Amino acid sequence: MNEERILLAHGNGGRFMRELIGELFARHLGNPALDTDADAVHLPDLAGDILVTTDGFTVQPIEFPGGNLGSLAVHGVVNDLAVAGAQARYFTLSAIIEEGLEVALLDRLIASFAAAARENGVAVAAGDTKVVRHGEGGGLYLSVAGIGVREATTDLSMKRIAPGDVVLVSGPVGDHGVSVMLAREQFGLSGGLLSDSASVLPLARAAWDLPGLKFMRDPTRGGLATVCHEIAHATGCAVVLDQGAVPVRGEVVAVCEMLGYDPYFLACEGRVVAVATPAAAAEVLARWRALPAGAEAAVIGRIDAGAARLILETELGGRRVLEELEDDPLPRIC
Amino acid sequence: MNEERILLAHGNGGRFMRELIGELFARHLGNPALDTDADAVHLPDLAGDILVTTDGFTVQPIEFPGGNLGSLAVHGVVNDLAVAGAQARYFTLSAIIEEGLEVALLDRLIASFAAAARENGVAVAAGDTKVVRHGEGGGLYLSVAGIGVREATTDLSMKRIAPGDVVLVSGPVGDHGVSVMLAREQFGLSGGLLSDSASVLPLARAAWDLPGLKFMRDPTRGGLATVCHEIAHATGCAVVLDQGAVPVRGEVVAVCEMLGYDPYFLACEGRVVAVATPAAAAEVLARWRALPAGAEAAVIGRIDAGAARLILETELGGRRVLEELEDDPLPRIC
Repeated sequence: MNEERILLAHGNGGRFMRELIGELFARHLGNPALDTDADAVHLPDLAGDILVTTDGFTVQPIEFPGGNLGSLAVHGVVNDLAVAGAQARYFTLSAIIEEGLEVALLDRLIASFAAAARENGVAVAAGDTKVVRHGEGGGLYLSVAGIGVREATTDLSMKRIAPGDVVLVSGPVGDHGVSVMLAREQFGLSGGLLSDSASVLPLARAAWDLPGLKFMRDPTRGGLATVCHEIAHATGCAVVLDQGAVPVRGEVVAVCEMLGYDPYFLACEGRVVAVATPAAAAEVLARWRALPAGAEAAVIGRIDAGAARLILETELGGRRVLEELEDDPLPRIC
Repeated sequence: MNEERILLAHGNGGRFMRELIGELFARHLGNPALDTDADAVHLPDLAGDILVTTDGFTVQPIEFPGGNLGSLAVHGVVNDLAVAGAQARYFTLSAIIEEGLEVALLDRLIASFAAAARENGVAVAAGDTKVVRHGEGGGLYLSVAGIGVREATTDLSMKRIAPGDVVLVSGPVGDHGVSVMLAREQFGLSGGLLSDSASVLPLARAAWDLPGLKFMRDPTRGGLATVCHEIAHATGCAVVLDQGAVPVRGEVVAVCEMLGYDPYFLACEGRVVAVATPAAAAEVLARWRALPAGAEAAVIGRIDAGAARLILETELGGRRVLEELEDDPLPRIC
């Protein structure tokens, strides 16, 4: 490709598009399953219990401390399959590119996507690129579908959650939300905080064989609190979080206090929330803490009989109901 | 949903998003495979040779004569699988919605998507919605991944194409491109032309068992000429089209002459280009003409040994080389 920026002609099906796909996308993403000349491709070696998921990625800025849109897209989809008990095997990738995007930036993002996919054992089987006019996009939007094979031997389902179960998190919450917010530089704040964007596959896999593990979810949009609300909605039980036990970094607390955000509602992109029996929770905690990504894992709450709501028990012994998120504090966080 | 327009809060993971997904998307798309509470869902009854494809849809305007973004997205993905010999079985749907989009319009589009999916025997297994700020989108972008099962018994591959084979098309070319262009009303032109947006599954299926059928493709972006260029590139052979034989509607010819477009480069969204041995081509033609969608099917050209290029034989006996598309005459046509 000789162009420095994406042109509308890169989306028209002709020579420019062929060069964009061949010299940028296929150069990074090439693998035996991918055939950029085919309308649809065969997925080899796909047997067993097949799971599927999809996610769109619109994060702004496209590059942020600790990650970028490319690696984030891989982690998001790998993680959705991992918390459902599956190893991601194949991706499809739909890129909606805004006219004028720097080709060098696109190249970095797709290289990052490709590296993260390889690290997680995923091959891109099919792709599509569209170019929209300047002012009709956000630089780059990626939509990814992930196809995986279930490897978990325990039944992961919110329906299994019952009073007496305990809630765990694999690490500090809110890092991704705050680091993306700081990268926007709109508040005159800066700092050394990195996004937690990462694959949770090692964490999830470490617990897939525990019968007492009932449910896992990666707390992305809406954060930890929203996962807890989903559990409360689905089970009709109360979720009680112990404020003193939830790991939150000092920088995240400080930024949230300044801007009036609640870290429990901020997106994570590399954490797992799990619900398990007390005995299984102790085992999950031990296994997670033995992994680098789980060093700060903690038991943070419990499931109580009673009204379906989220309660925060404060360190001073108070109880506060956390309501469901309504307005959007941080659009385009993922 | 009480809101008349999409808010950023419809993308934040909280109550508004839950209502959008439950009351709009899941209401139309609900089926036994879809579980909007799950991170990833199991695909039942998926055995055999599994094929996958993906496509992003950004057409402008979102509604046009003969179709809309919703039905177009279904046809595009069903068709990519159909020309590869597969029946689409499951979709994933990623929607990137622009803040301010009318909820009633979104509802119509997703209803149309759902109806077209049902007509083609496809269930939406997983979905995702994102909301981007006003001015960072195009109303609605849809990215769809399609998972299908191969039913064709013939090997469909450009590699099988050889000199002596003939080229067919299932109906007139350029209707979609011209009807979308007219819908933009930017040229002061109007007319009664409808997009050809449709499922080509009945056409493709009718030919899946013919050993002499070698290749099919739906001529979308870049149109008939671009499919012929792809064949020339892949085979090293010349593709020779008989100008008098290619079906093009009078309105399409008239608009193209006024605006300086070539109908062979305009997108179709419901046609099939096929390459077959002469004997198989006669059979394909007979079967296609017996279907409503194939009434105007025709043999339009042949594969010749010689330099890889696209040659148009004119009705007066002249020969003209059609070059590969470079600039984009019509962005956001699909």
